[in-house]
Amino acid sequence: MTLPLSIYDLLEVVLQKIKPTSKERERLNSVVGEIIARVEGLARNKELECETLLVGSAARGTWLAGDHDLDIFIGVAVDSDLHRALELARAAFPIYQERYAEHAYVHAIFEGFEVDLVPFYLVEDASRIKSAVDRTPFHSRYVSAKIKDLEDEVLLLKQFMKGTGVYGSELRVCGFSGYLAELLIIRYGSFVEVLRAAASWSPGVTIDLEKHAVQLHEDPLVLVDPVDPKRNVAAALSLDKMFQFSAASRCFIKSPDQNFFFPREVDPLSDQELLSRIEDRKSTLILIELVAPDMVEDVIYPQLRKAEQSICSLLDRNDFSVLRSDVHWHQDKLRIWMLFELEVGYLPSVKRHIGPPIWQEYHVDRFLSHHRQTLSGPYIDEGKVVVEVNRNCNTATQLLRSQICNLSLGKHLKLQFEKGYKLYVGRELLEIDGLEFRRFMARYFSRRLNIC
Amino acid sequence: MTLPLSIYDLLEVVLQKIKPTSKERERLNSVVGEIIARVEGLARNKELECETLLVGSAARGTWLAGDHDLDIFIGVAVDSDLHRALELARAAFPIYQERYAEHAYVHAIFEGFEVDLVPFYLVEDASRIKSAVDRTPFHSRYVSAKIKDLEDEVLLLKQFMKGTGVYGSELRVCGFSGYLAELLIIRYGSFVEVLRAAASWSPGVTIDLEKHAVQLHEDPLVLVDPVDPKRNVAAALSLDKMFQFSAASRCFIKSPDQNFFFPREVDPLSDQELLSRIEDRKSTLILIELVAPDMVEDVIYPQLRKAEQSICSLLDRNDFSVLRSDVHWHQDKLRIWMLFELEVGYLPSVKRHIGPPIWQEYHVDRFLSHHRQTLSGPYIDEGKVVVEVNRNCNTATQLLRSQICNLSLGKHLKLQFEKGYKLYVGRELLEIDGLEFRRFMARYFSRRLNIC
Repeated sequence: MTLPLSIYDLLEVVLQKIKPTSKERERLNSVVGEIIARVEGLARNKELECETLLVGSAARGTWLAGDHDLDIFIGVAVDSDLHRALELARAAFPIYQERYAEHAYVHAIFEGFEVDLVPFYLVEDASRIKSAVDRTPFHSRYVSAKIKDLEDEVLLLKQFMKGTGVYGSELRVCGFSGYLAELLIIRYGSFVEVLRAAASWSPGVTIDLEKHAVQLHEDPLVLVDPVDPKRNVAAALSLDKMFQFSAASRCFIKSPDQNFFFPREVDPLSDQELLSRIEDRKSTLILIELVAPDMVEDVIYPQLRKAEQSICSLLDRNDFSVLRSDVHWHQDKLRIWMLFELEVGYLPSVKRHIGPPIWQEYHVDRFLSHHRQTLSGPYIDEGKVVVEVNRNCNTATQLLRSQICNLSLGKHLKLQFEKGYKLYVGRELLEIDGLEFRRFMARYFSRRLNIC
Repeated sequence: MTLPLSIYDLLEVVLQKIKPTSKERERLNSVVGEIIARVEGLARNKELECETLLVGSAARGTWLAGDHDLDIFIGVAVDSDLHRALELARAAFPIYQERYAEHAYVHAIFEGFEVDLVPFYLVEDASRIKSAVDRTPFHSRYVSAKIKDLEDEVLLLKQFMKGTGVYGSELRVCGFSGYLAELLIIRYGSFVEVLRAAASWSPGVTIDLEKHAVQLHEDPLVLVDPVDPKRNVAAALSLDKMFQFSAASRCFIKSPDQNFFFPREVDPLSDQELLSRIEDRKSTLILIELVAPDMVEDVIYPQLRKAEQSICSLLDRNDFSVLRSDVHWHQDKLRIWMLFELEVGYLPSVKRHIGPPIWQEYHVDRFLSHHRQTLSGPYIDEGKVVVEVNRNCNTATQLLRSQICNLSLGKHLKLQFEKGYKLYVGRELLEIDGLEFRRFMARYFSRRLNIC
């Protein structure tokens, strides 16, 4: 397979847009220097022995232009108190937020950068960590040592992943982390070679840079952590995001285009557009709107997916065939939208129940004792006993209203459902205002990936 | 299992209704004597050596009161001409019909009896027959020799089978033949014992009276023909009719009732009743009416079932879920009705196609080349490529009108479809007049078998 010559010109153009300028680098370095000096000064004052280091993409020159995230880690000895490092972090900025992952950390905005100050333990070996963050400095050292002169390739890969919607290991995305992208570049040597490899992935691909894997993983992609042989770096990557990337890679190699990196954002639908989409499809669209719980994205999204799954199952179980569904969390307005597209929203009153083979007397007895009231039947069809009974819920909305609060919806979401929600059906979706909603609907209808 | 005492009293009552009176017997014997004398006289005149014999239920005292069918067989030597026996038969009655099964035979009405005069070859052994009818005299001899004093049990069993809708081996019914009923009585010794045995049948039950089976059969019930070890007497019995009988047997043993023998014929539905059934079920009923081909029942029914099956498949394949269907041949008016009850008659324009796993590049390419125009997609769902395309037919009636004549409908029926047919949907069914139609609909809605 030879690539059209133009691909490297194209990548050059892309790179110019995404590579931080030397001015940007200088500014970042000076800000980082200032923060580290501040933390270290505080440490001396408080007589705390610690190690302060910049980790993440900023540390290894693989951050995308315009990104202003700094991860600064404050390490203390394994036998000392992590809490003392947290106190340092709290003292570093006059205004800060305390956030919580496995442990508390400090988030602040400083000189236009989003800064995380994260306490961690200085362990000797990445396989003996006390908390997930303890592993990060090992990652940083490993990548820094291997990535020299490949930084631009990492930038291209990250931007390609962003553009094709697969970048980010957070639970909303379930895509590729920055570390995973870097390791792929280290493995294959360049952006183009990563895409060539990914183009022919199938589930179960395993990459083991250090040839030190010690256990099997069931995940669709396995990239054994070079600093921890037990861990799969790609554990959070979903099957669909893995192959969204693989399919986009195939497409890009066939016909390279800047759109893969910088896709056009969809325009929000106008009233007229929304109406005509609904009428063209002639399906039944049901939208559930509720107030979002006041939690972070990584708490909300798993619950949202769970609720989506539960509602789809409820509908399918009751013969309301779900064509597709989607969910959206409108962070600013604290709103959640759950959209379900059904083949039909209305079913007949009569419902067929197929029972056991008629010669299984015991099971037939039990089946019939559950179906004493029938519209027709019992009769025999293909050797099985069949009854036609009355369906409890004729319409999907009736079904949802009567059952939704009994479903498994996630702890915080369930509370919100119990407080109340709104159902919109078909044209009623027009009543919901706001560009965010109209963009959500636009993305729903125009859903189309780079597959070719 | 002990039966309530009353069952034998009940059977006594039933027997009084179904057992021919001595007067009826005498009349039958005199009519048979007259026909045989007439045929034998003709044979002497034409110098044909033949053997004339009464076969079937009339020959062995197992006909139900009110039945007036006589099967009189005219046998000639294997090396002579069957056609000469047919000439005798033709000469026997001034008015007759010539009918055709494997060979021609004569049908006439004589003294209120429906008489079949059937030519056959006198073969030495039932396994060496030249035509299916040659076997009949062997059946008759076998049963006659074994059925003495069990005639009443046969009558009860036949009437029970009639009453529960499983009597008759013709293709419309696919039930139990008279010969099969007789052999069951011979095997189990009485009506009640047949029912007790049938109550616990499962598919594959094999009965071999003469212990001489020479081959395996795939049929749900296998009763090896005592006069022909290769043949299964129950080959024409369908799985559903076998177990309709089995289930009715269980019920009858649990709670004996005359209704099993003499069920109430359903009343034809009034306009109001038909309308309320349609509205109660809220399903989509589609009725196809066409002119019946001028053929006998055993030609029409297999084609009707085939057409029913083809149409159900067409509908299901296009996502119009069929709840139930039924067909009816209105012999007197040469009409055929095919009824299809659908969950919905109307589907959305958007239709989801699930393609191959996204990593199967070749198959994905082929799939996408078939689906260039999409409403949404391609996208990936559970590892598979998915597109949403426009459905050609939104309504079931549109689908039927455009596709029905391309289906496999049976030779004669297809011609009738091509000549034209009518579609009635929902309330339009009220436009069809006549008690026969209204009874067909009543049976459809009230369909309920003896299962308990």
